Amino acid sequence: MSTPAKSTPGGPLVAIGGAEDKTSEAEILRRVLSLSKKDAPVVGVITTASSVPDDVFGEYHEVFSGLGASEVLDIRIRERSDAASEQFVEMIRNSDIVFISGGDQMRLTNILGGSPVLETIRAQRQSGSVIAGTSAGAACQSQTMVYGGPATDSLRKGAVQMAAGFGLVDGIIIDTHFLERGRFSRLMEVGATNPEYLGVGLGEDAAVLFEGDVMRAFGPGHVIIVDSSQISGSNVFELSDGEAVTVHNVIMHALVDGYGFNLKDRRVLGPDELRAAGLEHWIANS
Amino acid sequence: MSTPAKSTPGGPLVAIGGAEDKTSEAEILRRVLSLSKKDAPVVGVITTASSVPDDVFGEYHEVFSGLGASEVLDIRIRERSDAASEQFVEMIRNSDIVFISGGDQMRLTNILGGSPVLETIRAQRQSGSVIAGTSAGAACQSQTMVYGGPATDSLRKGAVQMAAGFGLVDGIIIDTHFLERGRFSRLMEVGATNPEYLGVGLGEDAAVLFEGDVMRAFGPGHVIIVDSSQISGSNVFELSDGEAVTVHNVIMHALVDGYGFNLKDRRVLGPDELRAAGLEHWIANS
Repeated sequence: MSTPAKSTPGGPLVAIGGAEDKTSEAEILRRVLSLSKKDAPVVGVITTASSVPDDVFGEYHEVFSGLGASEVLDIRIRERSDAASEQFVEMIRNSDIVFISGGDQMRLTNILGGSPVLETIRAQRQSGSVIAGTSAGAACQSQTMVYGGPATDSLRKGAVQMAAGFGLVDGIIIDTHFLERGRFSRLMEVGATNPEYLGVGLGEDAAVLFEGDVMRAFGPGHVIIVDSSQISGSNVFELSDGEAVTVHNVIMHALVDGYGFNLKDRRVLGPDELRAAGLEHWIANS
Repeated sequence: MSTPAKSTPGGPLVAIGGAEDKTSEAEILRRVLSLSKKDAPVVGVITTASSVPDDVFGEYHEVFSGLGASEVLDIRIRERSDAASEQFVEMIRNSDIVFISGGDQMRLTNILGGSPVLETIRAQRQSGSVIAGTSAGAACQSQTMVYGGPATDSLRKGAVQMAAGFGLVDGIIIDTHFLERGRFSRLMEVGATNPEYLGVGLGEDAAVLFEGDVMRAFGPGHVIIVDSSQISGSNVFELSDGEAVTVHNVIMHALVDGYGFNLKDRRVLGPDELRAAGLEHWIANS
């Protein structure tokens, strides 16, 4: 079995399912900050996905400052010309953590796709910076990105809308607000269209950290893994658009904080195995 | 592996996920009517679950009459004393099809549990009558019945509320409005509590027909099978109420009209196998 799922090499990559706690607790955002090697990192916030960037930046400025960021940069990219601007490229170069807010993932790919800013984000990651995103900012991390299709109408051929994403992680398709918006059937349809891709359904206030072949769940919410690699049948290629899709033998796992998943073996890792994997990763990278 | 899932012996048993089409098309209700051996059957409608029995009975009266029922009986059981009344027992005895409407399944079990009316429903089924129910009227058919717990909050220990149901089908837990209300995590939690029970998640305008060891999906919607028999781990017994449940290796199948499931082998049946199974069943019962 070909299992291409892995994160591309570089610094920590974090995908958050949306609606993460931003109060003093802020379990997930606190962890994101701690992933930087700096004690008081610079956080660059990209609010391109949002239609209310003022509000969104204001919130993250407050929470990241409260958690110990030395500076929170307002990377206010609103159109493609901004995504080519040296000013914003420079801000990303100065960020120890690049944080991509929620909103509409199609704005992200439309405005940032193929831009100097996106190239700089990739380069930052290569050089060890933390890249993190929530909701749209998480969905865009996949190579093939889900951007639409109501959950209640999915498992109908063509219902799930997909486009090319940023490809920060290979072989994985990320969906967000997963339990709250009942998107299980969405990733089952995605899996039927190409079983090679592992579905990662992030609940609200839940996150994953990609680290080589290992993905770690953290935060108060759930992470649902939708593994279609063993599906034994589907009618998807026989159907016309809108017809009901059948798919058999989809394997799912519900992970919580402290659990992880080996992307290569497609296997759940318990807290003990996960600690061992972390140690190996730390030794390999130090 | 012990797999107790099977319908109890007797006439056809149908569970519908709610919101079935009641227009002239009425694919599911038409099929329910055709399951009776009578050309123009008597349909007894039990509206106990509903808080608006007038409206609900009116709708079913119209659709079943239009589809060719010779009579549609208003079995208006509102309290426990009704459920003991000889009048209603007699109406059920006269029904070729007993149809249980939607509403609140707790009203059904509270009012009908242990009553002469429920005994008569069971006896009717033994003698070959059709029993069908939608939404609450489907959920109540399980031995252990799900009656509450918001989908967005499930996979938290104790979130899914269960009670004893009518036990018309063994080893199965039925949930309804399944895709529309995103209830996948609800049956994942149910499966973690006892992996022996097969979860059957009925979408709206989707139905299953139980026939011995075979369950057939029909109607325009989806039926999701949640098979927890192979789960490889869960923390559910270590948790306090409200804590996040992890569960690994849950197998799911999305079935559509024309597909089925062998409850004994826990195996999807394609259209060809299903036709063969139907023939065997027909020979065994003729």
